[in-house]
Amino acid sequence: MSLRARFETIRDATLRLAAPLSADDCQAQSHPDASPVKWHLAHTTWFFETFVLGRRGGLNGALFNSYYASLGEPLPRASRALLTRPSLDDVLRYRREIDREVCRTPDVDAALVELGLQHEQQHQELILTDLKHLLWMNPARPAYVKRAAEARDVDASPAAWMEFPGGLVEIGADGSGFAFDHERPRHRRFLEPFALASRPVTCGEYLEFMRDGGYTRPELWLSDGWDAVRREGWTSPLYWEDGRLFTLAGPRPLDPLEPVCHVSAYEADAYARWAGARLPGEDEWEVAAERARLPRGTFLESGRLHPAPGPAARLLGDVWEWTRSAYGPYPGYRAPDGELGEYNGKFMSGRLVLRGGSCATPESHVSATYRNYFPPDTRWQFTGIRLAK
Amino acid sequence: MSLRARFETIRDATLRLAAPLSADDCQAQSHPDASPVKWHLAHTTWFFETFVLGRRGGLNGALFNSYYASLGEPLPRASRALLTRPSLDDVLRYRREIDREVCRTPDVDAALVELGLQHEQQHQELILTDLKHLLWMNPARPAYVKRAAEARDVDASPAAWMEFPGGLVEIGADGSGFAFDHERPRHRRFLEPFALASRPVTCGEYLEFMRDGGYTRPELWLSDGWDAVRREGWTSPLYWEDGRLFTLAGPRPLDPLEPVCHVSAYEADAYARWAGARLPGEDEWEVAAERARLPRGTFLESGRLHPAPGPAARLLGDVWEWTRSAYGPYPGYRAPDGELGEYNGKFMSGRLVLRGGSCATPESHVSATYRNYFPPDTRWQFTGIRLAK
Amino acid sequence: MSLRARFETIRDATLRLAAPLSADDCQAQSHPDASPVKWHLAHTTWFFETFVLGRRGGLNGALFNSYYASLGEPLPRASRALLTRPSLDDVLRYRREIDREVCRTPDVDAALVELGLQHEQQHQELILTDLKHLLWMNPARPAYVKRAAEARDVDASPAAWMEFPGGLVEIGADGSGFAFDHERPRHRRFLEPFALASRPVTCGEYLEFMRDGGYTRPELWLSDGWDAVRREGWTSPLYWEDGRLFTLAGPRPLDPLEPVCHVSAYEADAYARWAGARLPGEDEWEVAAERARLPRGTFLESGRLHPAPGPAARLLGDVWEWTRSAYGPYPGYRAPDGELGEYNGKFMSGRLVLRGGSCATPESHVSATYRNYFPPDTRWQFTGIRLAK
Amino acid sequence: MSLRARFETIRDATLRLAAPLSADDCQAQSHPDASPVKWHLAHTTWFFETFVLGRRGGLNGALFNSYYASLGEPLPRASRALLTRPSLDDVLRYRREIDREVCRTPDVDAALVELGLQHEQQHQELILTDLKHLLWMNPARPAYVKRAAEARDVDASPAAWMEFPGGLVEIGADGSGFAFDHERPRHRRFLEPFALASRPVTCGEYLEFMRDGGYTRPELWLSDGWDAVRREGWTSPLYWEDGRLFTLAGPRPLDPLEPVCHVSAYEADAYARWAGARLPGEDEWEVAAERARLPRGTFLESGRLHPAPGPAARLLGDVWEWTRSAYGPYPGYRAPDGELGEYNGKFMSGRLVLRGGSCATPESHVSATYRNYFPPDTRWQFTGIRLAK
Repeated sequence: MSLRARFETIRDATLRLAAPLSADDCQAQSHPDASPVKWHLAHTTWFFETFVLGRRGGLNGALFNSYYASLGEPLPRASRALLTRPSLDDVLRYRREIDREVCRTPDVDAALVELGLQHEQQHQELILTDLKHLLWMNPARPAYVKRAAEARDVDASPAAWMEFPGGLVEIGADGSGFAFDHERPRHRRFLEPFALASRPVTCGEYLEFMRDGGYTRPELWLSDGWDAVRREGWTSPLYWEDGRLFTLAGPRPLDPLEPVCHVSAYEADAYARWAGARLPGEDEWEVAAERARLPRGTFLESGRLHPAPGPAARLLGDVWEWTRSAYGPYPGYRAPDGELGEYNGKFMSGRLVLRGGSCATPESHVSATYRNYFPPDTRWQFTGIRLAK
Repeated sequence: MSLRARFETIRDATLRLAAPLSADDCQAQSHPDASPVKWHLAHTTWFFETFVLGRRGGLNGALFNSYYASLGEPLPRASRALLTRPSLDDVLRYRREIDREVCRTPDVDAALVELGLQHEQQHQELILTDLKHLLWMNPARPAYVKRAAEARDVDASPAAWMEFPGGLVEIGADGSGFAFDHERPRHRRFLEPFALASRPVTCGEYLEFMRDGGYTRPELWLSDGWDAVRREGWTSPLYWEDGRLFTLAGPRPLDPLEPVCHVSAYEADAYARWAGARLPGEDEWEVAAERARLPRGTFLESGRLHPAPGPAARLLGDVWEWTRSAYGPYPGYRAPDGELGEYNGKFMSGRLVLRGGSCATPESHVSATYRNYFPPDTRWQFTGIRLAK
Repeated sequence: MSLRARFETIRDATLRLAAPLSADDCQAQSHPDASPVKWHLAHTTWFFETFVLGRRGGLNGALFNSYYASLGEPLPRASRALLTRPSLDDVLRYRREIDREVCRTPDVDAALVELGLQHEQQHQELILTDLKHLLWMNPARPAYVKRAAEARDVDASPAAWMEFPGGLVEIGADGSGFAFDHERPRHRRFLEPFALASRPVTCGEYLEFMRDGGYTRPELWLSDGWDAVRREGWTSPLYWEDGRLFTLAGPRPLDPLEPVCHVSAYEADAYARWAGARLPGEDEWEVAAERARLPRGTFLESGRLHPAPGPAARLLGDVWEWTRSAYGPYPGYRAPDGELGEYNGKFMSGRLVLRGGSCATPESHVSATYRNYFPPDTRWQFTGIRLAK
Repeated sequence: MSLRARFETIRDATLRLAAPLSADDCQAQSHPDASPVKWHLAHTTWFFETFVLGRRGGLNGALFNSYYASLGEPLPRASRALLTRPSLDDVLRYRREIDREVCRTPDVDAALVELGLQHEQQHQELILTDLKHLLWMNPARPAYVKRAAEARDVDASPAAWMEFPGGLVEIGADGSGFAFDHERPRHRRFLEPFALASRPVTCGEYLEFMRDGGYTRPELWLSDGWDAVRREGWTSPLYWEDGRLFTLAGPRPLDPLEPVCHVSAYEADAYARWAGARLPGEDEWEVAAERARLPRGTFLESGRLHPAPGPAARLLGDVWEWTRSAYGPYPGYRAPDGELGEYNGKFMSGRLVLRGGSCATPESHVSATYRNYFPPDTRWQFTGIRLAK
């Protein structure tokens, strides 16, 4: 696909995600780490305006800059829902104008356009996760879509352990194809032999942990995790309510064969300890992904909008998988010069790496080397558990 | 006017206030004590549905009950902006349906309809004050209306003192006409002789206080007020910015002859102390209003949406005037039985009485006996200062 | 008693309160509104040093100024427990030095010495209430004294209503004898006829309220009170635990005939509403105290350190009685000039008046015109309930 | 030294640290992560009582358990200063009794005694760091000791880079001698070539960073670090005030040749970025320590109580050196069974590893494999900066 066609396809996919939503839906923000859909629509456009068209400052910068301090003081995150002006219609107009300009500009920097598109895809996922949280906060528990796509390949077989020998390995992106700065450089590591489960932990398995007193036994938890359990009153994953699950298609019964999701890294860690296992390192995960070449699970394009109960063995897709690796620089990492140096590098503290992409991730966006990162108490993303030992 | 005509006129006036606003504008809430315009539109309708039509519970109750605990746990105030469903269109449809039902119902309780209309008028004012705060939080400082009505009767003459003899007086609503429960019963009080200024304190006068170090001299302030100054970083009334004033028609230069507004009771008290005066008691204010019969100032109907620099002497309108009276029950007050007993009575702690109505109050809504009440640190209402001694 | 003898007696009484305590006990502070005993010992001394000896500033001012902003920025209240230097021994030496100076100074201002002694007596009560809270926070629930004085005049008779005719009355201190600034001037008020209960509400009566769901029925509570119940998780008065009461002599069973104490104004108000009564106005209370001349209850000197179950009818002593009167200035009140103007005047917002003194108040310190004041959510003082109607 | 002699020596060293302090000094706690000296004295004793003598529960457990959830709910950290009972005298008596019992018990578990002594040494350092913060919070800035030991080996030469080749290395404690669980197992890692500075960053060097706008340039900071700078108002390391430094011997002028200390990991990281370097990994640090065998700096025994300006090259001592390594388990780590499994393992999230020991660490307590860990915003420990590249 030409870059131009790719540009139009990806930008349009964002609009299609927003299409079922009213201006009301696009305005609201249900917690400080989430953003209104309207803001996502504008911010991704501002990204092209700023980095591809090279226009800086002005009101768009004051409103739609996310966190680039070198571009001026951004609006506080929690204030994004206060931007009733520009209206949704104005923002859609803004998208069309910038799209037209990008397409008309003779020698755009293709690498920056590609970065903008990868960025756009990240926000496609965030539109869904932020919206899901917003709808959940409404006592009526309304749905984003009437009906989600049915699951295929349902499989009730237990997880198997995939064994790997360890030794000197390489991880990280090599030169070919797009990769974010923090996936580079490819470098060597030494690993002990390890094993990875052949699929993510399911709701049914997680229920056993809960029934065994998982949320009431401090010995299973990291200290910070136990503090979070008590401070937040966690007794189940997010979006569980009276044996039912809230999804983007509204509430419905739990399916015990589906991967458990919306768990924090603390819950993932406690589950793993309870199960006599542990979370993988990101290097182990990546080595396994490159060598085992398992089938993929569910992505955004499936229209399911929720992790699926199959196939029996799979790696990418369905849920982001918490690793026990703190998010940090690879040996020899250098943040890019200039403003885009703030894209990833400055977040290299207090976050854990997640791998694999989820049912809300565009399939083309993730790979075996892709690194996502969130603080360990994050639950509103489609985050799940892959066991290691 | 017949009650039916009055019903249609007042309900319609609310819609006209919302008419210039987008769905985006109606969705947002900029602080926990404010509400989204859409919520105001729905809540006032729920009031009629509940108390006039006698329907209780259901989803409307879960979403649009403000604070009537006897009708079930209300939605937390800070969550009102999360109700993207029902949409603004749905809420407008809800208004039309309930209006039709009220008008079609043969023997509605006229007193309850009247209470609903008075309640509606209270929310008309809140729509404006809440919206003003929301627009202010937008870095673009957008306007609600392009242009506000010009001031008439501009007058630069200094305030005069109106003297009153004190003695045994009566305050409170007598039997005739509508009055809220807390305006009753009319009762006797003993007052020392007192004097009241002939008009509210102006911006020009308040600027002198500021220039004299008003916000940096603890000896001028109540202890709680000084704490608020430091905690909140107050250095001027709300909505002052670099010598300009933010109004519902956008930012514009200060007019020194306009009444100062958007001050807390603490600021009003500090100003009065600085000026060698004090705030009035609500009984003094009411006696003055009944005896002096000064001209009225500006109300909502003027379209000015801001207090005006004249006439020279005036009492009701322009700004709510802080009194030093704690909001409490008159001797012999009894809250109404049932759910409507929660309307006013349960707020009789921690609040001060304000008198007189503002430029955002419907003129027919206020009178000499009308009692408004807010916590002393409130600034987003059109609150000003009347001196006494 | 000569002023000199009175000075020595009252200063010595403070030392006797601290005598059973270790340096450890005197150092700690269990909530921001309380102070360490060592700080009380030093602050009262600083009061004489500053206002009687006329020495200002210096380290003592930086450490032991409570809230006199005109004497420089006081140490934050919550930091008082951090002052391990000077040590308790140093503070006791400081007391002796200042006492000697005061006694040696030829023409001390007798009015200021008297104010210092009244201030000292206020802190005697605070030493006991602050210490009680501190000991309560210790899981071992240790006692201040081994054994408290036995109750005399135990009386199980029900409260009677004392009727008063209302009309034009006078309240406030007249010229004779010591009175705080805020007790003046004596002035006229108009009262409706009212009745006052002949004794405070007892624990047994309060238990009935609790058993009738008092803490779970929002309709009984002021809105702010209900918020406090939920925020703080109140289900009983402070210091009640499994049917036992924590006292300065340690935990012991509840006595249903003792006055209930350690209730907030919100609890007092909710109880009164439940009982079909209300809290008195401070003017009603004072008129009753002057006219009814009931026997007094228990004061500090009794050594009981807890309110007592008798005599049958009584007014001053045992518990501070919440009134529904907001603490404010009497008509014509003027705060004293200079720094001592901060003593009371600046607290005239957000507080309610309490009347009558408690079992921790020195008996000579209170009178019918005495005004104490605390925010309505205060519970660590010996605060109780007198019903009115 | 026999274990018995070692026991007596180390336990006695703790007492000698507390000897210059009053009961007042030992009672207070100036922030929630610090503890009162009295509590340290009691907690270390409780550790022997619980784990060596095998007595569980009781009041000592309720008061002096730090964080062992499997031994019952510990007292909230912030409440430790409220334990005025037992008194300091009682705690000293408790120490003597437990010491006697430990020494009298025939077959104590030597490994548990050794763990208790290592634990005791950790608390010796905490006694000094917690006390330093407490004295700093006193406006009088009092001193712990009149005079600290003079510096020897002052050296103004610039830091050199020590080069290391990388490759497959081993880190972690091998079987011999005491090591904490988390120092094991010794295991292989692959490292790229790296260099380490020959001494910690000095105050003089850090001042250049400050003068170059270090605290005002977001591009130098991790995102979480910049948030901390703004939230906490940091403009220098902790304990710097008007060009002077607060030490355990009181305030004195900065010495530009001393290692900078009391910096957070965020400040260390920002300084390193400004200097064109980075923080070391804990594996790099350990490899360097084992291979370079530099002289040691200052430890607790020196009596200096502050990092020293020499010798020119040195590694252990003076300041704990922030690494960029998240604190986590070594490959194959298993927390010990039982209650002591909570000692380290449960803190393996949200913390960074520090290496090398400080001027407040007993010299025998640290080694090349020793791992300390704190959250990245920690400043009250003696934490400094070692550059790597």
